[in-house]
Amino acid sequence: MTLSMPDLAQQYRAALLGDVIPFWQRHSLDREHGGFFTCLARDGAVYDTDKFVWLQARQVWLFSMLYNRLEPREEWLATARHGADFLRQHGMDQHGDWYFALDRAGRPLVQPYNIFSDCFAAMALSQYALASGDDGARALAEQTYRNILRRKDHPKGAYSKAVPDTRPLVSLALPMILANLSLELEWLLDAATFEQAIDMCLREVFGLFLDQDRLVLREHVAPGGQAVDSFEGRLINPGHGIEAMWFLIDIAERRGDRASIERAADVVLSTLELGWDQRHGGIFYFLDARGHPPQQLEWDQKLWWVHVETLVALLKAYRLTGRPECWAWYERVHEYTWARFPDPAHGEWFGYLSRAGEVLLPLKGGKWKGCFHVPRALYLCMRECEALAAAPPAVLS
Amino acid sequence: MTLSMPDLAQQYRAALLGDVIPFWQRHSLDREHGGFFTCLARDGAVYDTDKFVWLQARQVWLFSMLYNRLEPREEWLATARHGADFLRQHGMDQHGDWYFALDRAGRPLVQPYNIFSDCFAAMALSQYALASGDDGARALAEQTYRNILRRKDHPKGAYSKAVPDTRPLVSLALPMILANLSLELEWLLDAATFEQAIDMCLREVFGLFLDQDRLVLREHVAPGGQAVDSFEGRLINPGHGIEAMWFLIDIAERRGDRASIERAADVVLSTLELGWDQRHGGIFYFLDARGHPPQQLEWDQKLWWVHVETLVALLKAYRLTGRPECWAWYERVHEYTWARFPDPAHGEWFGYLSRAGEVLLPLKGGKWKGCFHVPRALYLCMRECEALAAAPPAVLS
Repeated sequence: MTLSMPDLAQQYRAALLGDVIPFWQRHSLDREHGGFFTCLARDGAVYDTDKFVWLQARQVWLFSMLYNRLEPREEWLATARHGADFLRQHGMDQHGDWYFALDRAGRPLVQPYNIFSDCFAAMALSQYALASGDDGARALAEQTYRNILRRKDHPKGAYSKAVPDTRPLVSLALPMILANLSLELEWLLDAATFEQAIDMCLREVFGLFLDQDRLVLREHVAPGGQAVDSFEGRLINPGHGIEAMWFLIDIAERRGDRASIERAADVVLSTLELGWDQRHGGIFYFLDARGHPPQQLEWDQKLWWVHVETLVALLKAYRLTGRPECWAWYERVHEYTWARFPDPAHGEWFGYLSRAGEVLLPLKGGKWKGCFHVPRALYLCMRECEALAAAPPAVLS
Repeated sequence: MTLSMPDLAQQYRAALLGDVIPFWQRHSLDREHGGFFTCLARDGAVYDTDKFVWLQARQVWLFSMLYNRLEPREEWLATARHGADFLRQHGMDQHGDWYFALDRAGRPLVQPYNIFSDCFAAMALSQYALASGDDGARALAEQTYRNILRRKDHPKGAYSKAVPDTRPLVSLALPMILANLSLELEWLLDAATFEQAIDMCLREVFGLFLDQDRLVLREHVAPGGQAVDSFEGRLINPGHGIEAMWFLIDIAERRGDRASIERAADVVLSTLELGWDQRHGGIFYFLDARGHPPQQLEWDQKLWWVHVETLVALLKAYRLTGRPECWAWYERVHEYTWARFPDPAHGEWFGYLSRAGEVLLPLKGGKWKGCFHVPRALYLCMRECEALAAAPPAVLS
């Protein structure tokens, strides 16, 4: 396979603007009740009308981001506003915590047990405030961000089922998402808050969650970073670890921190060595660090977000380090991904493949897949390929 | 395939007494801290030491049941006592609610958010009290049963994440398990409590959860029995529905209620028509009632308990109705099950197969699979085949 950078950039641009964005514009807007349908069948038909705050917020973010960074198209801003209005009207309880799910009309279905609803809401409102100049959205983004920092050490609050103290664990997900979120919100945070937050993310992700010998990230560790020999403690989520690495690469690039960029690239590569399915290709969803059976029955499935996040991470790592292994892995994952996930018959991408790479669920959107990972990755990969087309990768010595 | 009843009875007996029970006797007893290891690799090696109350209790029940119903072997009673002592010492919080998970030493890990822990504890202690004559176990079984009835309408208590009133739903699982549990505890309940409980189970399972047109059970319905068009409302779990039917057949047989036996047989057959995988054989784990993509990524997997519960249900239905369709389906499911789940190399049965019938996780036990469904089904099928060998099936007109 020979991939040229300008062709790649064009491939990503065409998929983003000619396929994926129009698919969501056409099928996902609820003109009656506001907000977005995300449960879309293969052909875009709505098969369920519940509204999940993660996905409502992520779609607001995506359209705002395209407006801000790619092109100020009025229709994109209008789509973002369509979702932002629904979110602000229905998304929060009386304490300012974000529900997990709403029904079609916006009535709350699932309590704010999940702090990631708040993370995606803050990300959405910040990007939307940048696009729209809406001060209320800006204030709510900032308030939600501070709320997240306040709840950070007990993210599940009263909904936590763990007995305190028997086996305390901390999760990669929160410092990882805060790395991305803090960069997103930098424009509205004071410098001290911002620097403190990204210091914390770098310190925790590399200091607590990284298995220093194998260079893969653990999903859960003891509060001091010790490995814990339990189902949760042994859990490895390769896609999650790789996604975390491009979040940290973004921070490290901003700071000119070459050591962290190199380390993140190491982790991406060693995670791929561990997580790649030698039999069928593709990246496993979950693994047990000791090779025991994982608890997750879906462990061997091939998920869209795992693969597109890996493409982003590899292109960023390649541009910034010039390592040929990054490019070799990029070609391999690119070939696997583009051959299986896009749906030429009906547009957009499949989300869930079996281990063997067959379509497991023919949906284009559901409770967890919305207008987010695919278009974000298409946008980011396009930008990386444009940069690489303009200048060869940096080679660090 | 020609299956003779005496041969079948012998096949089940040999698997139960020559393979499955010795496997758990050999590998699962924790001689140091008490209780049972249930996370056993293919060869029986312990790969995790956490103790899940469902599985601790189910193993206590199983060994007590064999002692009570098959043969009063001292080693079986000793094994039951080994688990019952651990459960009583560590299993409950200060309110008498049963934890979901403990660590190896018995320290609580996961709060009593799950009322099925209480159900299996009551079932275990009742059967163990019958075996041992232990009055404390008997009293605790009864107290736990009353506690379950008290918590029945809010089984998750403070751990429920559903916003009350927006979309109230009730679950098949609780009336279904109470059908079985009430029969188990009949000997220690007063007649009124018992009759009321089994009336409620028959009324709710057939009256609320049964789709009267398609004759399949819904997992969740509105409190009045209305179908709800949401992920939870559309969920069908064929194995669960079929298992519920043999619980009701047991009740109906005890009462001489032929109409309920016929109805349960109808439901078993129509659930198999819906749930059978025409492509690879075997019974799907989850389906969406409207054919939409289910939320559960593991929907197409073939699970041990689904298949062995189906064998039990079909033999009971065949013995009591004489319908040739029950026998035809029995032969089909028997062939599928016995060809794929038992592990001749290391003993015991695999639990989790892919859609195509390949081993997905090589474990013999884990967080959900323990010493329960396989040996219970082997015992029950053996008894059904013995009865059928002694007398032809009843043919109802």
